[in-house]
Amino acid sequence: MNDPLKIALAGLGTVGVGTLKLLTRHAALLERRCGRPIVVAAVSARHRDRDRGVPLQDYAWYDDPVAMAADADAEVVVELIGGADGVAKDVSEAAIAAGRHVVTANKALLAHHGTALARAAEEAGVTLAYEAAVAGGIPIVKALREGLAANGVERVFGILNGTCNYILTNMRESGRQFDDVLAEAQELGYAEVDPGFDVDGVDAAHKLAILASLAFGCEINLGAVHTEGIRRVSPLDIRFAEELGFRIKLLGIAARTGAGVEQRVHPCLVPLEAPIAHIEGVFNAVVAEGDGADTIMLEGRGAGAGPTASAVGADLVDIARRRATPTFAVPAAELEAVAAAPMERHRGAYYIRFMVLDRPGVFADVAAALRDHDVSMEGVLQRGRAPGAVVPVVMTTHDAEEAGMMRALAQIEALDAVAEPPCMIRIETFSTGGAG
Amino acid sequence: MNDPLKIALAGLGTVGVGTLKLLTRHAALLERRCGRPIVVAAVSARHRDRDRGVPLQDYAWYDDPVAMAADADAEVVVELIGGADGVAKDVSEAAIAAGRHVVTANKALLAHHGTALARAAEEAGVTLAYEAAVAGGIPIVKALREGLAANGVERVFGILNGTCNYILTNMRESGRQFDDVLAEAQELGYAEVDPGFDVDGVDAAHKLAILASLAFGCEINLGAVHTEGIRRVSPLDIRFAEELGFRIKLLGIAARTGAGVEQRVHPCLVPLEAPIAHIEGVFNAVVAEGDGADTIMLEGRGAGAGPTASAVGADLVDIARRRATPTFAVPAAELEAVAAAPMERHRGAYYIRFMVLDRPGVFADVAAALRDHDVSMEGVLQRGRAPGAVVPVVMTTHDAEEAGMMRALAQIEALDAVAEPPCMIRIETFSTGGAG
Repeated sequence: MNDPLKIALAGLGTVGVGTLKLLTRHAALLERRCGRPIVVAAVSARHRDRDRGVPLQDYAWYDDPVAMAADADAEVVVELIGGADGVAKDVSEAAIAAGRHVVTANKALLAHHGTALARAAEEAGVTLAYEAAVAGGIPIVKALREGLAANGVERVFGILNGTCNYILTNMRESGRQFDDVLAEAQELGYAEVDPGFDVDGVDAAHKLAILASLAFGCEINLGAVHTEGIRRVSPLDIRFAEELGFRIKLLGIAARTGAGVEQRVHPCLVPLEAPIAHIEGVFNAVVAEGDGADTIMLEGRGAGAGPTASAVGADLVDIARRRATPTFAVPAAELEAVAAAPMERHRGAYYIRFMVLDRPGVFADVAAALRDHDVSMEGVLQRGRAPGAVVPVVMTTHDAEEAGMMRALAQIEALDAVAEPPCMIRIETFSTGGAG
Repeated sequence: MNDPLKIALAGLGTVGVGTLKLLTRHAALLERRCGRPIVVAAVSARHRDRDRGVPLQDYAWYDDPVAMAADADAEVVVELIGGADGVAKDVSEAAIAAGRHVVTANKALLAHHGTALARAAEEAGVTLAYEAAVAGGIPIVKALREGLAANGVERVFGILNGTCNYILTNMRESGRQFDDVLAEAQELGYAEVDPGFDVDGVDAAHKLAILASLAFGCEINLGAVHTEGIRRVSPLDIRFAEELGFRIKLLGIAARTGAGVEQRVHPCLVPLEAPIAHIEGVFNAVVAEGDGADTIMLEGRGAGAGPTASAVGADLVDIARRRATPTFAVPAAELEAVAAAPMERHRGAYYIRFMVLDRPGVFADVAAALRDHDVSMEGVLQRGRAPGAVVPVVMTTHDAEEAGMMRALAQIEALDAVAEPPCMIRIETFSTGGAG
């Protein structure tokens, strides 16, 4: 028998305990897949005495995870603490400095410090593995880094946050407002008490920044991700979108454009014919457009103890088999510092809804504002008439530049007859009849 | 710079030429991903002088691919000839015997000889890689073998043949008969002149046998795949299925059951809520149900020069990076010879359509036949009345055993009032609201 792969595990929350359970349940399977057993040598968490439903007495205990990362008798440190800085970062750096591989589920850490950590790991000759950090149980990191290694990828996008997708699905099915559905999701445990990380798009932005680096071979650039959440999506717009043949999804989209790499997270109208429109509830999906493989979509659960442990386990099997790959597909030292395409330069189609006083001349003013800024209308949806009352007017545009669209919206908002700030949602289209 | 990875390529049809083009176009990208350049050292094909639109003068030419596999100055032999036996098998065996890695897109070869070839390769210490053999550009082999390595997988299924899916999509959209649509597909080049390999389910069976081995760690057992094609699917049944909330797809399904491993390829009714119901045209999709990751679906193009070359390229990157994995996820010597679950023992729901003379008592006879064989009705669809004429009656059943269903159908077919052999299509359901 080959030497076991000894691991030290930092963090015993839901995911940490799920990982311990998986390693125990599948010890025999993993031994066959790894060619050697995986042995948990040490663990660390904040509270030693908490009952977590798993026996811990066989593992060396460390109160200090950083000390564990530096000293434990382990080849691999599994970091399941979370957070962009602080302990998680210290643990990862200590492990790398001590010549140990790092497996992490920490998207925030990677989005903020991924390039530097990858450089350090590669200089130390160890692996920094993070399949669990993006889209949970979906093996998208492996798919982009290895499965599509022979492709030039021009665009990668996806539904990267299950909480937002659950809320949007529920709003569409029930017709209820965002706040209502969020409160229920919080009660059910599908959303955090402090929901901003999810519903403001921050979590999706972290994952997108990682995907962009993997797909395009560029340094991680979280600051360049244009990020909007789903708080301003209303049941009214969900309904209008359906009427127009679209569904509203929070997408993260990274693409190479003439102006550099564009990264953006925001609600989108996606055509109902696109398979990604049918990814509902807590499910995630990622689409990659390769120049050889064409459009590939991966779908599955993006969070939870089981899916995350599955991804951590896959990384451990790779390490046990000594399958090494540069962290972001090409050596970290070769990652390019690619220009970020500014959002004002984005080109695309738009859905816009105005609440206007139904009186003569308003429509002409709106149309003039669009024309003044080179935005050309594609269609208009206006239901019935209600002279003197406030009514919604919905428009879709042809491809236009974001800067012009924004100036037109400001001009429209300033009109007397416009009762509230216009609602704008970008329309995302896909070239093939395929997975997109 | 590291030593280049030298390869010898056998077979210069569409896929072979596509692979050469990809290796040329992405030489720089591949060198970064591989850590060393990929160099084509030798090629072999049947006709040397054919114009293939790619220059061949830089490569050593072999008339005999088997001689090339044995003698060429190459670490890897890429087998793109095809066919279960004959030259493709000889090339692969010669390459392994000479201590060279083999990359193949040949599903027939693997389905017939995969276990033996894997044993030979592993004994010789070389890789047998075959990402291109299943679902083209979709990295499903890597996903099952590595990405889901920490999961027990109980079921894997998918749309594995793009020609069949194209025909079924077209039949549904146009309402035309199978023969019509097939003829058109042949004219357009989407179906072969001899279409049996595709439309009789043989190609899908090959791929399913490979997936089952990968998912369950068992020897490949092509003979155990119950295989039916799509020739008897009619527009009438497609329409009734839609009315009942289902779409008809040719699925390959492999599952662990109490009676052993069940492998089957046949048309299925899948619920419209299932994402796999929305995979249309030439696209393929594979769903794996893991006990950690839960349901994962991968979708993309299952054939064509670009997607196949993408998969071949991924295998080459793995070899260049010296990332080795047992061929079917566990060492070939440890693959189990698992009992095949006989199709008569299959349990599931059924869609059945009878063409019956509309006269009193017929329905009672049909119901009695079902009851006699423990098949319980779930619903009945009968449109209007036409006394004395032949009308379709459609039923769906609760879960029943295949053997009983078959006996009931034989009894029904023998009834005077039944005008033609009943049509039976199995209903496939999925436990989650997810990818299935």
